Amino acid sequence: MSSIFSYNKVDKKILYLLRSTIGDKNVSSDKEKLISYSHDEVPPSAYESEYRAEALVFPECSAHVSEIMKIASANRIPVTPRGAGTGLSGGALPAFGGIVMSFEKMNRIIELDEKNLTVTVEPGVVTSEISKLAARHDLLYAGDPCSGDASFIGGNIAENAGGNKVIKYGATGAQVLALEVVLADGTVIWFGGKRRKDVTGLDFTHLMAGSEGTLAIITKAVLKLLPLPRHSIDLLAAFQDAETAIAFVPQIIKKGGIIPASIEFMDKKALELVEKYLGNPVPASDAGAALIIQLEENDPDVLEKEYERIGTLSKENGASEVYVADTRSTKERIWQARKAIPEATSFFYNRYTKEDLAVPIDRVPELLENIKKVCLGRDLEWVAYGHAGDGNMHCTVIGPDTEDWHEVLLKVQEEIYSAVIDMGGTLSGEHGIGFKRKKFMKLFLSKDHLELIKRVKLAFDPDNILNPGKLVEWNE
Amino acid sequence: MSSIFSYNKVDKKILYLLRSTIGDKNVSSDKEKLISYSHDEVPPSAYESEYRAEALVFPECSAHVSEIMKIASANRIPVTPRGAGTGLSGGALPAFGGIVMSFEKMNRIIELDEKNLTVTVEPGVVTSEISKLAARHDLLYAGDPCSGDASFIGGNIAENAGGNKVIKYGATGAQVLALEVVLADGTVIWFGGKRRKDVTGLDFTHLMAGSEGTLAIITKAVLKLLPLPRHSIDLLAAFQDAETAIAFVPQIIKKGGIIPASIEFMDKKALELVEKYLGNPVPASDAGAALIIQLEENDPDVLEKEYERIGTLSKENGASEVYVADTRSTKERIWQARKAIPEATSFFYNRYTKEDLAVPIDRVPELLENIKKVCLGRDLEWVAYGHAGDGNMHCTVIGPDTEDWHEVLLKVQEEIYSAVIDMGGTLSGEHGIGFKRKKFMKLFLSKDHLELIKRVKLAFDPDNILNPGKLVEWNE
Repeated sequence: MSSIFSYNKVDKKILYLLRSTIGDKNVSSDKEKLISYSHDEVPPSAYESEYRAEALVFPECSAHVSEIMKIASANRIPVTPRGAGTGLSGGALPAFGGIVMSFEKMNRIIELDEKNLTVTVEPGVVTSEISKLAARHDLLYAGDPCSGDASFIGGNIAENAGGNKVIKYGATGAQVLALEVVLADGTVIWFGGKRRKDVTGLDFTHLMAGSEGTLAIITKAVLKLLPLPRHSIDLLAAFQDAETAIAFVPQIIKKGGIIPASIEFMDKKALELVEKYLGNPVPASDAGAALIIQLEENDPDVLEKEYERIGTLSKENGASEVYVADTRSTKERIWQARKAIPEATSFFYNRYTKEDLAVPIDRVPELLENIKKVCLGRDLEWVAYGHAGDGNMHCTVIGPDTEDWHEVLLKVQEEIYSAVIDMGGTLSGEHGIGFKRKKFMKLFLSKDHLELIKRVKLAFDPDNILNPGKLVEWNE
Repeated sequence: MSSIFSYNKVDKKILYLLRSTIGDKNVSSDKEKLISYSHDEVPPSAYESEYRAEALVFPECSAHVSEIMKIASANRIPVTPRGAGTGLSGGALPAFGGIVMSFEKMNRIIELDEKNLTVTVEPGVVTSEISKLAARHDLLYAGDPCSGDASFIGGNIAENAGGNKVIKYGATGAQVLALEVVLADGTVIWFGGKRRKDVTGLDFTHLMAGSEGTLAIITKAVLKLLPLPRHSIDLLAAFQDAETAIAFVPQIIKKGGIIPASIEFMDKKALELVEKYLGNPVPASDAGAALIIQLEENDPDVLEKEYERIGTLSKENGASEVYVADTRSTKERIWQARKAIPEATSFFYNRYTKEDLAVPIDRVPELLENIKKVCLGRDLEWVAYGHAGDGNMHCTVIGPDTEDWHEVLLKVQEEIYSAVIDMGGTLSGEHGIGFKRKKFMKLFLSKDHLELIKRVKLAFDPDNILNPGKLVEWNE
């Protein structure tokens, strides 16, 4: 299979073709730019080699994307689509050089359709712009990744980004009604449409979600909107330890009888780190762990009943304190703390691995127990936080700043992954496999399953030019 | 491509192999049985030829399915998986003979997991059994096809069955967390798991939904459950005509600020037909059209406020009368009327085409207008009903009982489909393409799109033995 990784270089002829097709201003081979567009938020130092784009293209429309792909496929040049570069798995890394295709110029919200409750966007729109526009029309775009103020919707779809509201609304893929895509050979196709139901053919719309740019390039998306809940409230419940907090999570749904919009978890270390990083007091920062529970309702009286019920339930289930955030500023304070954990970690530490493990909800306590055991045994620190409501925990293991970190890391990961597999869990809940995690895929998926992924990849992209070197290993 | 449709017959050797592998009692070649298992609810007379299974198998477990597929693939025998035979597109028709695999013996609910809010089932479980079991645990299984009292969950998933609650909860595919499948060569694979989020690999779990048994055979499914809404109410709003009723639909969501569990539509003819068929008075049967709006809430006071709001909105938007069904018997009376429309149609008429068109919600009035125009121009009758909330209308065109019906039908369909395409609609919202609709696929999907479907089909099933002759035409 190694022949499918033989590519041509982007030479002067290819650059000329690109420039004459999509315009000089939309092509760059500037060295500094090439460097800055050759990684996402996984730092280049995380890999053993360096990876570098040979050309950058900035298409302005689907026709540009199609023309670029025609040039790339005719000349066997790999193409790596790139959103805002906020990815956490090296999905936008140009693993075989070639062309990096940035969508920053395809950033129009084409239409908000109030009658059909849809919004049609280009891939380079910043996610939070969609939410803001929808809100101005009393509508909700339910995708809500933590990176929403920076990430592009195209990247969200390609990674099937999760975030804070998956428990109630599903991940990004669940918000997608239709996609315009460009295939590897430049063909433009619409999957789905502005209809709510469609069984006409195979469901390629949702196969695209999480396919990490390996099957086709997203050039337009039609997203679902919902009525905007009129009122919301955030509860921050403080617990003496992580175990007590996590054990309460399934009770919120079962005994509370509702699906909150969010159930987020922060352990002691996470609370301490963000308080130190933000330089402001964080509510419950002296607790052993905390949950953020977001409730939404149209009726303020119902919301009040609900938060009183959940508040009482929290106390009955071991919460030492429940803070209620019902103003914009108190809400922001809570969410700022939750969202700053990754930044705080990278601010204070150089060596760490941010994991994206997803396990059945009832196994989260066991997962945390396991992380603790693995770390204590090696004198390592850890931070645990994440989307407790859907069992997706971003456990971050912090390493000593020593030379042997990569070796230690590998052992730590193997131990944790082996436990996660026993729990019926998986390698990545929302950050993706990309380049960073592909070597571990064989632990989680069978050989036959991996083979099937490769066959479907080649059914879409027979020449393997779309974001090669991602998702699975081919014994390159 | 025609060579991929060359199969061997099920001869004595194959029957012997099947019997010795899965047991005599699980294999049949009885002629009468072969006939009754060789069609679904599309009557055999709908097709120009007859199609007949050569053998029936009744696997008891995944291992049986795997063994059957090993025999079938080693001997190039086509295999058609079959649920309860309630399909409406000829999906379970053995278009190339071979083996029909019935799942009636794989009918166990394996586990209801209250902590993770999941239920794990075999494909032969009757859908309503899942809902009933869940309800006994105060949980909701949100899939709700009209055929739910008879259809199997495996068939629901394979067709991505819709039904009455898609507007709020999504179709069957949206309820699926994980699937155990058997590939064409007998390999057993799990797609997904009991976790709420998973981006580890491509999303084959949801690609299976609506793939009509052409990619792999579903042998187990893990489905999501939700807290059971404690109270519900059905409103039946009567309108003077279809146009006024349908124009109100987007207002329910936009001005009502909520997503009801159902918004169903019945036109005048549908109301008259069911009243005549059921022999009991149907509420609003003298109206020009009616909507059923189902509301669900945990709090009875909120529910009351909501139905008063929606009731008032109905009146403001042209409803002449609003009936409130809040007891089991009044609710059943309303839903019995809605669900009996297809039976009533087939009871009173011999020649008709039940369409499954899905258009953007705001185009439904135009769709109905078009059906009317096409029918009036040819002196044909029609019945229009369906899932107005998601733009999926089961328009049934009733033909004269004459010889030239097939010719007339084709012209009627071509005219309607051409209008549907102009509206951004599609051929099938929930009943599937199967055998019945495949000849029209080229009107709705581009050549490149159809080609991609074929390539993915062959990536899963290189020998084309899984339910061949469905979904797309290969110029067989």
